[in-house]
Amino acid sequence: MQHIEQYQKSFITYMEGFTTDKEPNNLYQPINYILKLGGKRLRPVLTLMTAEVFGSNINEAMDAALSVEVFHNFSLVHDDIMDDAPLRRGKETVHEKWDLNTGILSGDAMLILAYQLFENYEPKTFQALAKLFSKTALEVCEGQQYDIDFETRNDVAIPEYLKMIEYKTAVLVGAAMKMGAIVAEASNENQDAIYDFGRYLGIAFQLQDDYLDAFGNPETFGKQVGGDILENKKTYLYLKTLELGTETEKVNLIEFMNSDTLSNDAKVKQVKTVFKTSGAAEATQLAVKGYTNKAFEILKTLNISEDKKQLLRAFGEQLMNRNV
Amino acid sequence: MQHIEQYQKSFITYMEGFTTDKEPNNLYQPINYILKLGGKRLRPVLTLMTAEVFGSNINEAMDAALSVEVFHNFSLVHDDIMDDAPLRRGKETVHEKWDLNTGILSGDAMLILAYQLFENYEPKTFQALAKLFSKTALEVCEGQQYDIDFETRNDVAIPEYLKMIEYKTAVLVGAAMKMGAIVAEASNENQDAIYDFGRYLGIAFQLQDDYLDAFGNPETFGKQVGGDILENKKTYLYLKTLELGTETEKVNLIEFMNSDTLSNDAKVKQVKTVFKTSGAAEATQLAVKGYTNKAFEILKTLNISEDKKQLLRAFGEQLMNRNV
Repeated sequence: MQHIEQYQKSFITYMEGFTTDKEPNNLYQPINYILKLGGKRLRPVLTLMTAEVFGSNINEAMDAALSVEVFHNFSLVHDDIMDDAPLRRGKETVHEKWDLNTGILSGDAMLILAYQLFENYEPKTFQALAKLFSKTALEVCEGQQYDIDFETRNDVAIPEYLKMIEYKTAVLVGAAMKMGAIVAEASNENQDAIYDFGRYLGIAFQLQDDYLDAFGNPETFGKQVGGDILENKKTYLYLKTLELGTETEKVNLIEFMNSDTLSNDAKVKQVKTVFKTSGAAEATQLAVKGYTNKAFEILKTLNISEDKKQLLRAFGEQLMNRNV
Repeated sequence: MQHIEQYQKSFITYMEGFTTDKEPNNLYQPINYILKLGGKRLRPVLTLMTAEVFGSNINEAMDAALSVEVFHNFSLVHDDIMDDAPLRRGKETVHEKWDLNTGILSGDAMLILAYQLFENYEPKTFQALAKLFSKTALEVCEGQQYDIDFETRNDVAIPEYLKMIEYKTAVLVGAAMKMGAIVAEASNENQDAIYDFGRYLGIAFQLQDDYLDAFGNPETFGKQVGGDILENKKTYLYLKTLELGTETEKVNLIEFMNSDTLSNDAKVKQVKTVFKTSGAAEATQLAVKGYTNKAFEILKTLNISEDKKQLLRAFGEQLMNRNV
């Protein structure tokens, strides 16, 4: 087994062969641009690692890993249009650098290219990969739609929110791992278990993201701390405050969030205080721990050697920043 | 073999089962809306007819036919955004009735749904259908990109234009027919031949569309006659005028097209006159005939009975409005 950095390196080398000059240039240039913007390449690394865990060579899983990464970048390009985002990884988004039409069309092409990347697998593997991919991709679209719907709703329940982040974020993590298992011809039981492992880890990761957005260390978090609060996003912290807080805390939260008079710093500070006093901050940490443990429980059911389980566990812990 | 109207009816009945209520509503309602807007359903009818020509039951080909129609409607939804079109089949376009984000996201979901519709076929058929679909879908995107590129170019050559309409329109007609052949397990030779038959017919159809847009009978054409001229579109008629016309005709064409002073009626009338005197109108009719004949030539190579060839030919003739 390799270190994450080695998987990343192998993957990036493979991807360079994919992003060559093709015509029409105005369609393929933006695709190369977004794929080369960087990022941790976590999803494809998970595909490669899982394939190896189940006894396959990572080269066998390269196309599946690349498909996951191309799909992920497709969703970023279209989501950035929908969110009107000017920047992605500190660089211009595709629709900003080019235009709206380029963003739509090159995104469409990436979704198709993601399917094409399965074509070198034999028919049964191809069908298994493409089926999982379609199910996952549709759930990602549904998650995005729920996210949009929630913006204008004031009655979002916690289970709805959890379903939204599961669809929008977590199922792709599960699918990335399951694709590695499919390529390695793992048993159906192992395939389903590794999917759930990735899915639970994905939910934990997103909840942690909600937590760190408010309470993370500004020097290590990477994004602006308090960004969700300033955008009035209904995160897990927000929804938990409405569930657990006293009447005063709930009224305060909504007042702070809608305030036109508070400075940005003051708004973030006040809202964070309510997140803490209401118990929402602690509840979020508990939820992160709960989903991480659910993932680790699944590992026990996997029919693989103990040292491989240990490897997957270590990866999960690294992902959750616990660095045990 | 059935009449076109019977194929249409069977297809529409099948499609009604597909457009049921699903959650999230805001994602699936626009999909149902566009699929129910109507249209001639030519592409799915071609899939069903071809499957029957090669000895299959049309029910076997329903999912493939529906996939073609769902993909076609995906491309309409995204193209309408790119073209800023307010109306489609006389009704509001999706991004007008809802909004931009809904148009993007429900389009994305339709592209995925089109792939999912192959899932009931056994692995080898699934792979053959999905491969053809991906190749075709990517070409349609490339064709759309060329079309966008041509808007701002003044040096578009006829072969480039032909490639653009082949990709944007004709390959999907070929693919629709080939899918029917794949489902019916026709020989590779027959599959390739029927693809070329559809592709040539598709090119002929689009060139005829260019011709009819200027010279069609206003009462039967369905669209506004002269619409392409008023939108300054570089159609086959336009490009042929630049190829065949005298210096005066070319200068006149560009002057009329760019005129701010001519009324719409005058502009259409003047441009049509140049299309005629330059020989471009006749050249376009010849090209339509040429591609139609190429399609009919292909029929001869097909390894099927003469009456089935006659049926395909009759369909082609009906499509080209010759009604022989």
